[in-house]
Amino acid sequence: MRGTMLYGPRDVRFEERPDPTILDPTDAIIRISAACVCGSDLWPYRGIAPITGPTPMGHEYCGMVEEVGSAVKHIKPGQFVVGSFFASDNTCPNCQFGYQSSCMHRQGVGGAQAPLLRVPLADGTLVATPGVPSADLIPSLLTASDVLGTGWFAADAANVKPGSTVVVVGDGAVGLLGVLSARQMGAERIIAISRNASRQKLAREFGATDVVAERGDEGVARIMDMTNGIGADSVLECVGTQEAMLQAIHSTRKGGYVSFVGVPHGVELNGEGLFFAHIHLHGGPATVRRYLPELIDLVWNGKINPGKVFDLELPMAQVAEGYRAMDERRAIKALLWP
Amino acid sequence: MRGTMLYGPRDVRFEERPDPTILDPTDAIIRISAACVCGSDLWPYRGIAPITGPTPMGHEYCGMVEEVGSAVKHIKPGQFVVGSFFASDNTCPNCQFGYQSSCMHRQGVGGAQAPLLRVPLADGTLVATPGVPSADLIPSLLTASDVLGTGWFAADAANVKPGSTVVVVGDGAVGLLGVLSARQMGAERIIAISRNASRQKLAREFGATDVVAERGDEGVARIMDMTNGIGADSVLECVGTQEAMLQAIHSTRKGGYVSFVGVPHGVELNGEGLFFAHIHLHGGPATVRRYLPELIDLVWNGKINPGKVFDLELPMAQVAEGYRAMDERRAIKALLWP
Repeated sequence: MRGTMLYGPRDVRFEERPDPTILDPTDAIIRISAACVCGSDLWPYRGIAPITGPTPMGHEYCGMVEEVGSAVKHIKPGQFVVGSFFASDNTCPNCQFGYQSSCMHRQGVGGAQAPLLRVPLADGTLVATPGVPSADLIPSLLTASDVLGTGWFAADAANVKPGSTVVVVGDGAVGLLGVLSARQMGAERIIAISRNASRQKLAREFGATDVVAERGDEGVARIMDMTNGIGADSVLECVGTQEAMLQAIHSTRKGGYVSFVGVPHGVELNGEGLFFAHIHLHGGPATVRRYLPELIDLVWNGKINPGKVFDLELPMAQVAEGYRAMDERRAIKALLWP
Repeated sequence: MRGTMLYGPRDVRFEERPDPTILDPTDAIIRISAACVCGSDLWPYRGIAPITGPTPMGHEYCGMVEEVGSAVKHIKPGQFVVGSFFASDNTCPNCQFGYQSSCMHRQGVGGAQAPLLRVPLADGTLVATPGVPSADLIPSLLTASDVLGTGWFAADAANVKPGSTVVVVGDGAVGLLGVLSARQMGAERIIAISRNASRQKLAREFGATDVVAERGDEGVARIMDMTNGIGADSVLECVGTQEAMLQAIHSTRKGGYVSFVGVPHGVELNGEGLFFAHIHLHGGPATVRRYLPELIDLVWNGKINPGKVFDLELPMAQVAEGYRAMDERRAIKALLWP
């Protein structure tokens, strides 16, 4: 097959690769129905997170099970499945607490921007849909694998409840689906931070009630104005930079909740500042597996349409253009058809 | 009257001071029944938190109301009251959310190591006991003003629930009362970190099931051993240093809860480390006012005896010896009788 490899900064190649095979008896091989480029793929693409050598890319996936290892009991060839970007056994104590992305036997999933993918710990990682989906559902099911699951985790970790006032910092695909998630969880007011017209529009479609263009301290001042000087109940930090994190913390009311769901790059939090901010803080790798059954159900029954984040669709062979378009912010998120 | 003043590092004086008077119509004047020295008083005493000039000391108090301002409606002369170290109106949105120590009209309370004290925002700040307490209840009621309220906040902010496994980092008075609080909240296992025999003993009296002497990475390794490599559900950080904070974070299970209740000194948290730790973090000035009615009730009805943290009692005129004894860790906490 041909698959996507990153050789170095801005050097993405779609090239001949060996077909993946069952390595462990708990593996499954999936025929990818659709894959995509993740905001987190841009860190190594931009050279900010260095790679040590040519790296198979892609960790968001859905598709048909082709083959399973001898120890796989529940997942069967012919099923349509969605899985998380971290493989998990779903039985260890961390998994039982709902923290499958910190499974004690966690393995990364890599190489999903290709027609075939090996998924470790298949029984714990993959969730089958009720049947084979129609083509129009595939983009939305794909989002459940990471970007929707991460937006959902952001809203859940920020304790969004019916009636909440919510701020979403970051207008990438995760932030936009954080808006959608907050709306699903019953938030009354959702303030999206964005200065990009097409992203603002999608934020409103997903449920944002207000859009604020200001960032940093000016952004904080605007949120304080809009909340009578109190701050928001829940703030979702969906960027991963120092500025975004401080904007999130300072936009939150005393006793409110901040979540952070992108790997922080260069973020340092001063203990005394955090103390007097008086907020709850929770973040980390999104616990996608915990939410998959619920998210698949919402998509399957047409309650949500998170696939709208894909504003660029490409044949997988043109994957490099997908990276370029997202890097240059010409696209929110690029879908790849095998 | 004579009251306690800090002039500089290790220079505590009990000296002639003007009697406090009603300055604002929402003030009350309290005749102090007992006061004490707080762990946080040691930061300026040691010169770590510099002072700008001679400073009236003491912020933990209980006593009889002598006089109230014209706008005070609920608190009356002759009542025995306990209040928090932060005065709060108890009506603003932050107070309504239970974050009275971040009241939008918050004022510090200072000068409690003296026979008379001015308390601002008396109606919002003070809670009257059911009657005038017997002398033996006074030390325990005094703890509700800060040290017990802070330990209680530590346990609550760390989400201690019936059946929880809890670690308490710090064997000062706050940590010890964090143990007592965790026990009251139904924790099944409470591991106190202490290498001091008398504090270990009191921790066990308050409900600790285990004591660990190791600190830092060795302390983390011990906790991991004791929890089958999973970590604790709830960890109370009751010190305020970088080492204690990292020990707390790394002793917590994925998805678990860390609270921090002492003003952090020199603490910097790396964003990426916090992300992969996958914990919930909450801290800040303890929301003592929120808990006062419940804590007064527990003390009044003899359910808890937090006054045991006072292992040194002095006439107020000997306050300097109280500071010395706590600084040198000869005493856990010094009670001052007026």
